[in-house]
Amino acid sequence: MTTLNKELNITIVGLGVIGGSFAMALHDAGYRNLYGIDIDQATLDKAKAQQLIKEGYQDGKDILPQSDLVIFSLYPRLVHDFIVTHKHHFKPGSILTDATGVKKFFIEDILSVLPASIDFVFGHPMAGREKKGIDFASSSVYKNANYILTPLPSNKEENLAFMEALIMEMGFGRITRISADYHDEMIAFTSQLPHAIAVALVNSDVEGRETEKFTGDSYRELTRIAKINEELWSELFLENKEYLLKSIQTFEDQLDLIKAAIKNDDSVALKQLFIKSTKRREKFDR
Amino acid sequence: MTTLNKELNITIVGLGVIGGSFAMALHDAGYRNLYGIDIDQATLDKAKAQQLIKEGYQDGKDILPQSDLVIFSLYPRLVHDFIVTHKHHFKPGSILTDATGVKKFFIEDILSVLPASIDFVFGHPMAGREKKGIDFASSSVYKNANYILTPLPSNKEENLAFMEALIMEMGFGRITRISADYHDEMIAFTSQLPHAIAVALVNSDVEGRETEKFTGDSYRELTRIAKINEELWSELFLENKEYLLKSIQTFEDQLDLIKAAIKNDDSVALKQLFIKSTKRREKFDR
Repeated sequence: MTTLNKELNITIVGLGVIGGSFAMALHDAGYRNLYGIDIDQATLDKAKAQQLIKEGYQDGKDILPQSDLVIFSLYPRLVHDFIVTHKHHFKPGSILTDATGVKKFFIEDILSVLPASIDFVFGHPMAGREKKGIDFASSSVYKNANYILTPLPSNKEENLAFMEALIMEMGFGRITRISADYHDEMIAFTSQLPHAIAVALVNSDVEGRETEKFTGDSYRELTRIAKINEELWSELFLENKEYLLKSIQTFEDQLDLIKAAIKNDDSVALKQLFIKSTKRREKFDR
Repeated sequence: MTTLNKELNITIVGLGVIGGSFAMALHDAGYRNLYGIDIDQATLDKAKAQQLIKEGYQDGKDILPQSDLVIFSLYPRLVHDFIVTHKHHFKPGSILTDATGVKKFFIEDILSVLPASIDFVFGHPMAGREKKGIDFASSSVYKNANYILTPLPSNKEENLAFMEALIMEMGFGRITRISADYHDEMIAFTSQLPHAIAVALVNSDVEGRETEKFTGDSYRELTRIAKINEELWSELFLENKEYLLKSIQTFEDQLDLIKAAIKNDDSVALKQLFIKSTKRREKFDR
């Protein structure tokens, strides 16, 4: 395993719940030269007061030239805009990375404006919170979580290896390298479809019923993510629309099988569907 | 609040994950005259070895005549059969109760065979586990959970009050009295629909993908209950088919709104749906 230099200058752009969690995880891993860029001065002050960052900046031009690694945790479209604004400020040879939940469209958009001397290693930590802002940041959500990297042909192998070592230092449990396209296909299923389902489930309740008196863990668990950041997730849904629509359709086909079994009082068919889901879900227990 | 007599003889019929959890919660609450009836001798031996019950029986005829309260935690149809077999063994004036997830059909079925001297207070603890058997029993799942009672016109108020006091002693957080019909309507939405969704979600995965490498908490949470007891849940689904089909339809209507917004690149409509679900879900945080 690569031993990383803890003196590296690491700058996090966007100190919300994800950026704040990165700062905490990096701090836990022994990094102290951490810097933050955020449009919100109160967020920067809070991060500095908590000693998560050494210094905070509303503008990137002073700290970017000294930053060995820049981590973006912004809404997808803002990353593109940030790079356009700051393309002459990045340190030559530095690494950029991100935490964006869609990849194909996003990467094409970034590559069109990225300076050639900069290596952008695209990634996606498969862990998050349903809340916004640095107050909800936590490095513990990253412990043992999955991380996906979507390498480009142009990425230097040493930079990919650096990112993998850093990700493991932050406590993640498993890193998988896949193509941007496969990322988007899988994430439509494992992340976006569950969010669409949770939103639809909560919205299908009858207004005015005291539903909270009649819920068990199932309903609460299935709907936790119905508290959703509408700005972020509307972008994510629309930037992955083809795979997401396909995932929703495949899900609906399976729900139709359950409906048909119920309509036909077909307990044999129902049991077969339940046995199938049980066997499949057991694989996920860790 | 009623002070209950801890010397009462309480017999639990069916020492699976639910019955075992009742035994633990009653033991925690100070009851010691607890008895178990189960067809599986190993389960009875285990419950006795753990001191959850004083004695276990494969047949109910010896202990039922001395039981002040009998708690059924059996598959719905087996409760009916048990009462038919044992209707002359219940102690006159004793209370029966249950933990069954469907009520209207189930209650009609029971009332047709119940002796007049016995008061059956129908109830439903809104807490469970996705696993089977006494090894997974736990009184902690009941802490602060919801409990529903569906009183009959014939129930004695003192017996309803007794059950409510006992339920609170077991650690539940809230008890609501509603009709059997309203129970079934609500439970179709808060419990059965989430189970149908979880099963359909897991079954809609593409066979052979290494999905576990790409999941975050959302997918794992939404699918925990896809590990499902097929015997129990096929009964529950079919015995509540009308309300469940209606709940599935209402859910699909909401999913269609999300689909349409994605297809039309309508980020305004998507955001409105997300804002609605966020506001609704926030009410459930406790």
